[in-house]
Amino acid sequence: MTTDAADLTARLIRCPSVTPQEGGALTLLDGLLRDAGFHTVRVDRAGTPNLFARWGERGAARSFGFNGHTDVVPPGDPASWTHPPFSGALVDGMIWGRGATDMKSGVAAFVAAAIDFVTRTPPPEGAVILTITGDEEGVSRDGTIALMDWMRETGERMDACIVGEPSNPEVMGEMIKIGRRGSLTATFTAIGKQGHAAYPHRANNPLHALVRLLAGLTAQPLDEGTGHFDPSGLQVTTIDCGNPASNVIPEKATAVVNIRFNDSHSGDSLTAMLRERAAAVEAETGVRMNVEVFVSGESFLTAPGPFVDMVQGVVAESTGMRPVLSTSGGTSDARFIKDHCPVLEFGLVGAFMHQVDERVPADQVRQLKDIYQAILTRYFA
Amino acid sequence: MTTDAADLTARLIRCPSVTPQEGGALTLLDGLLRDAGFHTVRVDRAGTPNLFARWGERGAARSFGFNGHTDVVPPGDPASWTHPPFSGALVDGMIWGRGATDMKSGVAAFVAAAIDFVTRTPPPEGAVILTITGDEEGVSRDGTIALMDWMRETGERMDACIVGEPSNPEVMGEMIKIGRRGSLTATFTAIGKQGHAAYPHRANNPLHALVRLLAGLTAQPLDEGTGHFDPSGLQVTTIDCGNPASNVIPEKATAVVNIRFNDSHSGDSLTAMLRERAAAVEAETGVRMNVEVFVSGESFLTAPGPFVDMVQGVVAESTGMRPVLSTSGGTSDARFIKDHCPVLEFGLVGAFMHQVDERVPADQVRQLKDIYQAILTRYFA
Ligand SMILES: [Zn+2]
Ligand SMILES: [Zn+2]
Repeated sequence: MTTDAADLTARLIRCPSVTPQEGGALTLLDGLLRDAGFHTVRVDRAGTPNLFARWGERGAARSFGFNGHTDVVPPGDPASWTHPPFSGALVDGMIWGRGATDMKSGVAAFVAAAIDFVTRTPPPEGAVILTITGDEEGVSRDGTIALMDWMRETGERMDACIVGEPSNPEVMGEMIKIGRRGSLTATFTAIGKQGHAAYPHRANNPLHALVRLLAGLTAQPLDEGTGHFDPSGLQVTTIDCGNPASNVIPEKATAVVNIRFNDSHSGDSLTAMLRERAAAVEAETGVRMNVEVFVSGESFLTAPGPFVDMVQGVVAESTGMRPVLSTSGGTSDARFIKDHCPVLEFGLVGAFMHQVDERVPADQVRQLKDIYQAILTRYFA
Repeated sequence: MTTDAADLTARLIRCPSVTPQEGGALTLLDGLLRDAGFHTVRVDRAGTPNLFARWGERGAARSFGFNGHTDVVPPGDPASWTHPPFSGALVDGMIWGRGATDMKSGVAAFVAAAIDFVTRTPPPEGAVILTITGDEEGVSRDGTIALMDWMRETGERMDACIVGEPSNPEVMGEMIKIGRRGSLTATFTAIGKQGHAAYPHRANNPLHALVRLLAGLTAQPLDEGTGHFDPSGLQVTTIDCGNPASNVIPEKATAVVNIRFNDSHSGDSLTAMLRERAAAVEAETGVRMNVEVFVSGESFLTAPGPFVDMVQGVVAESTGMRPVLSTSGGTSDARFIKDHCPVLEFGLVGAFMHQVDERVPADQVRQLKDIYQAILTRYFA
């Protein structure tokens, strides 16, 4: 008897697990995995619910992992939905509800694949490890990162890991993500000297310093891209001053810059660059430039090799498409796994993510489960 | 018997004429001037009180004018003042109160000078015209400009006019203002396309366009100054976007620019320049750039010549200093008079203007009255 990933998706959708609510989703999976012989631990941290599950011995020589999240973004006004957002309704082959693509379906697919794989005869030699968090859509401070911390502390290990996030823009099998750019946010506060617009020599305009800095930062691309990455991107996301008087030179203004960076930079190298540029403008203008930097994720890359080749091969056999190896898009929890083991992302088609009427074809979820199971089979062969 | 300008200053200070209140100030002057044989008219417009006074015939071949205002800025907390702000207290030779320097004293000086001048024996040949407004500190839309409109409509004329605003930075006699820079305010609204910071190719950042425009505008001075003017100045007075999400490229942002311009520009020429620059950035970036311009005053210059020479000479004789001919500072009501006749500004020392404990030496007010009277004598000689 096999486990139906589509049915499990619908059951998970019925758990109202809007971040930070667990909503019964992890509890449901915990029970299923225990029944299948997995050793499970709730690795909750600071109120964030997380589930660790291992089949096989701790520290086994061969150990393959999957990662995903059961929390979902809010559904908005339920009345806007064709079928209620937590119904998991199956209509004309589509499963409806919040999390149908992002990513209760992905979790259901790898949980079903893992259960069917380890309960085969004869059982595989090695370990299968599932890390599932209840906080990927929120601040992500005590989610996958807590699971990885806990694994390190308790001697758990993986050789490789797949994050089951939707990775295909439009068609199943067209894309595997082998890396992601890093992300950094810098806040600049320019402090000059207030004064009357008619007497600028008695004042020092912080906006002129800020404009000079930002014009310099946006004038040229940060790089030309690397082997597997697009060029890094810098966006000024806001500039604010709030001075209502057009005859007054303001004292203070702020700007926020977001950088999505490839593997030719690091959070540290970019922080140093931004501080240097700000210091240069401060020296040129006399306007004090405070810089605060928050690195929300370093870039990562799992270079093409046996692991990537194997996954690419399985996907190609199942879908008839040779998936492109991509590093596009925002950040994902893979950034927390990359220091643990090689990691890549493959899942469903990302359409409908975070939208009203989020839904997924039931057969696509079953196909993803088959792909995951084939990957396990190939890996442990 | 002569009129005491210091006493008249104190009486005017006791009229609480905070803009837009008349406070009895114009009424007081109206009575004094009528008694001295002036023809007076209250030229009120849209609720703003204004006083026109002429001694002599309308349209006289020789006609000299003075201009000033009796309204004052608010005194703030009266408890902060050493002497109450509307007391006109005379203590140790100083007259205290709001308007003591800006500019009830200047008005008192030219009213006293004009009365004593026209009541001499024999009387002068020609006309003396006083235009006094109750709204210079406010929006100035229905003040001196209304008086000039009314004069034009009724056939009143002046050969030359002195605005009695404080013109000396520190010492009586050091400066005559023969011009003022113009002032213009431009509001730029940049409208791009919102999007996620990780997918900038699907968005168009209005802040990048705005920064490019403003960096261009602030990179170089607008000019090097002209014969009588300092270089024009451009100040960015605010930039605002209000985007709280550092992973979102905003749709819209605004910036305000204030330009103080000399006689190498006009409101029209600068408006055209700003629109051209914005259009160029729009063409380069695809971000729509809306531009709204408000010209609050054109520059003016009364070039050195007989009028300026005469005033400069009288001031030098009275004070022992040869006054500098300056065009510095903000705008003044002279901008409304300049199309009517040559105009310049000479008055008291500007210290204490708009401050708590505003005060003026009584003797300085009397000296200013003597200078104004000597100017009238010299002019009609
Ligand atoms: Zn997700
Ligand atoms: Zn004034």
